[in-house]
Amino acid sequence: MLSRLLEEPRIDALVVGRPADWYYLTGFTGESGLLLVSRAGSTLITDGRFMVQAKEETRGVRILLQKGNLFQCAGEYLKGCGFGRVGFEPGQMTVAGWFELRRASGGRCKAIRAAGLVSGLRARKDAGELAQMRKAAHLASAVVQSAFKLLKPGVRELEVASEIEYAMRQRGASGPAFETIVAFGRRSALPHARPTAKRLRKNELVVLDLGVILGHYCSDITRTVFVGKAPERVRRWYRGVQEAQAAAIVAARVGVTCGEVDEAARGVLAGQGLERFFVHGTGHGLGLEVHEEPRVAKGQKHRLQAGNVITIEPGVYVEGVGGIRIEDDVAIHGKQTEVLTRGSRELIEL
Amino acid sequence: MLSRLLEEPRIDALVVGRPADWYYLTGFTGESGLLLVSRAGSTLITDGRFMVQAKEETRGVRILLQKGNLFQCAGEYLKGCGFGRVGFEPGQMTVAGWFELRRASGGRCKAIRAAGLVSGLRARKDAGELAQMRKAAHLASAVVQSAFKLLKPGVRELEVASEIEYAMRQRGASGPAFETIVAFGRRSALPHARPTAKRLRKNELVVLDLGVILGHYCSDITRTVFVGKAPERVRRWYRGVQEAQAAAIVAARVGVTCGEVDEAARGVLAGQGLERFFVHGTGHGLGLEVHEEPRVAKGQKHRLQAGNVITIEPGVYVEGVGGIRIEDDVAIHGKQTEVLTRGSRELIEL
Repeated sequence: MLSRLLEEPRIDALVVGRPADWYYLTGFTGESGLLLVSRAGSTLITDGRFMVQAKEETRGVRILLQKGNLFQCAGEYLKGCGFGRVGFEPGQMTVAGWFELRRASGGRCKAIRAAGLVSGLRARKDAGELAQMRKAAHLASAVVQSAFKLLKPGVRELEVASEIEYAMRQRGASGPAFETIVAFGRRSALPHARPTAKRLRKNELVVLDLGVILGHYCSDITRTVFVGKAPERVRRWYRGVQEAQAAAIVAARVGVTCGEVDEAARGVLAGQGLERFFVHGTGHGLGLEVHEEPRVAKGQKHRLQAGNVITIEPGVYVEGVGGIRIEDDVAIHGKQTEVLTRGSRELIEL
Repeated sequence: MLSRLLEEPRIDALVVGRPADWYYLTGFTGESGLLLVSRAGSTLITDGRFMVQAKEETRGVRILLQKGNLFQCAGEYLKGCGFGRVGFEPGQMTVAGWFELRRASGGRCKAIRAAGLVSGLRARKDAGELAQMRKAAHLASAVVQSAFKLLKPGVRELEVASEIEYAMRQRGASGPAFETIVAFGRRSALPHARPTAKRLRKNELVVLDLGVILGHYCSDITRTVFVGKAPERVRRWYRGVQEAQAAAIVAARVGVTCGEVDEAARGVLAGQGLERFFVHGTGHGLGLEVHEEPRVAKGQKHRLQAGNVITIEPGVYVEGVGGIRIEDDVAIHGKQTEVLTRGSRELIEL
C-alpha cells in the first residue's frame, strides 16, 4: 500500500519527518524519529525513549535505534540500502537535516522534492476517520455549550480556559487540540489571543475558540457571545459574519476550489463594508493535526474532494473594540456537505 | 544591542524563525511570522491575525503585514534593503522556506549558516529570568506534591493528568510546559508515555513528569513513587537512579562539559549494572522552551556557563516491568549550582 507513495515522483525511498504523518502510516505515536518508506518496506529510526513504544505500536515496520544524529543515521541507512532518489517534504525538512542526511549518505542521495504525498492521503478521510472526527466535533460542541455558564462578570479569561480544558478531559478527550482561546472585550479583536488574567465585564464580547483531541483526531469550534444587550453595530457585525459563514458552508462542495469557498465568505463581508476587518483566511483542513491540508484562503487552487474535512471560520475584528468569529467543522461528501460541529450560530446575549 | 548578533558571522541580516527566539528579542508572542534583524533595526513580518498584537507587544520594531507566502515576503524585503549576506539557523529553516526566500530575493541573498546565535543568548539567563524560572520550578514542585494524593488504586492515568493540569492553572500557570506524563506499572517503562485510560493497581510504579509555563518560562520535574511496599529490585533501581542524579548535580558546574555531566550519571548506573536500562540523555536546557540549549547527553562538548539552566533526569526503564526517573531543574552560577525544583527525592511508598 505504502509503495504507491513512491510511484508518481519515481523515488526509491520517502523520508517522512512529521509525527502525524508517521502515525497515519504506521501507528507510531512517538514524537521523535524518521520514517523511511521504500518498496522493500518501512523503517522507523527513533531513539531509546521510544523503542518499546515503537515495537508495541507498529506492525511490519523495521525499528532501528538512533545512535547520534538522527539525519546521519538515516543517511547511513539509505546509503547501505543503495537508494539514490530520495523524496522528502521540503516544507518539513530543515536545511540542517537535509545536509546532514546527504553528507552521511556519501552524497549518493539525490534530493527529490515530494511535497504533499502523505498530507494528500491524510486530507481524504475514510469512513472510520470521519466517525472519529464526528465524535471529536460533538465533544467540542458540548464543551462550548457548557462554558457559556462560566461567563459571569468578574471571571478571568485564564479561569474559563482552565475549566474548559478540564471539562474536555472529564468528557474523555486526551487533551485540547490547541491552546484554548478565551478573549474578552477588546482582546476579542486579537484572532489568536492567549488567555490572560483579564476579568470579564458587562457589555463585552467573548470569543471562545476550542478543540479537543479524541482518539487522535482534532476538532475546532468557535462561538462568540455578548455579555449584556448587544449594541446595534455589534449585531450588524455578527450578522455579517453569520451570513459569510453560511455562504461559505453552502459553497464548500466537491470540485469547488478552496479559494472559491474563501471568496464566498469574503464577498458577503465585502458587500457589507466589513472586508477590511476580516484579517485571516476562511478555514483550514482538520484531522490528526488541527491545521493541515487543504488551506481555505484567498486564491487557493485545491479543489475540494470527498473526504476533506475543513473549518469554516470567518471573523470581523475591530481594533480597540472587539471581534466576532463563528467556526464550524464540515466534511465534504460526494453529494452533500456535513456540518460536524453542533450548536446554534445565533447571537447569544448572556 | 541586537546588532551584536550580526558581528561574528559578518552578516547583513539574520532571519529569526522560531517563536521563542523572537519573543526573547522583541516580546512578540504571536505564533506565525519571521523576524529580520539588521543593523538598521528589526522588522517583523506577520499575518493579519497577529498585527494588533505585534504592535501592542513590541517597541521599536517595524511591523510588516504578510501578503501571500511568508518567505516570499521576507525575500522581497531583503532584496529591497539590498542585503547580501543573510544569516539563518539551518536547524530551524525548512528547505522550502529557504528556496522561497532565495528566489524572492532575486538570488541576491547569500545563505550564511548562523547556528545558535539566538539560542546561545537564551541559554545564559539573567537575574530576571532566573527569578521567573524559580517561580515556575516551585509551582511545578507544589503540583507534584499535591498529585500524590490522587494516586489511589482504580484512578486512571488520564484523570490524574487532567487534575494535574487543572491544578497548575488554578495556581497561576498559563498552562503545562508539555503534555503531562502519568504512567502506571509497565507503562512507566516508556520514558515518554502518554496518559491512557489505564487504571492504577496496587504494587505498581508511578512516574509523574510535569512542568508549567509561568510568565513565559518553563519548569520540568519528575518523581517516581511505588503504590504499596516496593520489592527489593525496585528499591535497588531507585537507589541507582537517585545516586546517578546526585552525582550529575554535583558534576554540573561552570566549565564542565555537558557530556561530563551525562557521564557522571551514566557512570553511577554502569557501576550498578543498570546502564543498558538508561535509554536517554541526562537532561536538557530549559527556559522559554521546555527543550532548548544545551543538550546534556553523551559526548556533548558545550561547557556549562553561569546562567545555564538544565534538567538532570536519569532513569532506568525495564521493558515489561516498569521505569524510574527522578528529575530536577538546576541553575549554574559562578560559585555554586542551585536546584530550582523542590521536594524529597527519596522513594515514596503510597
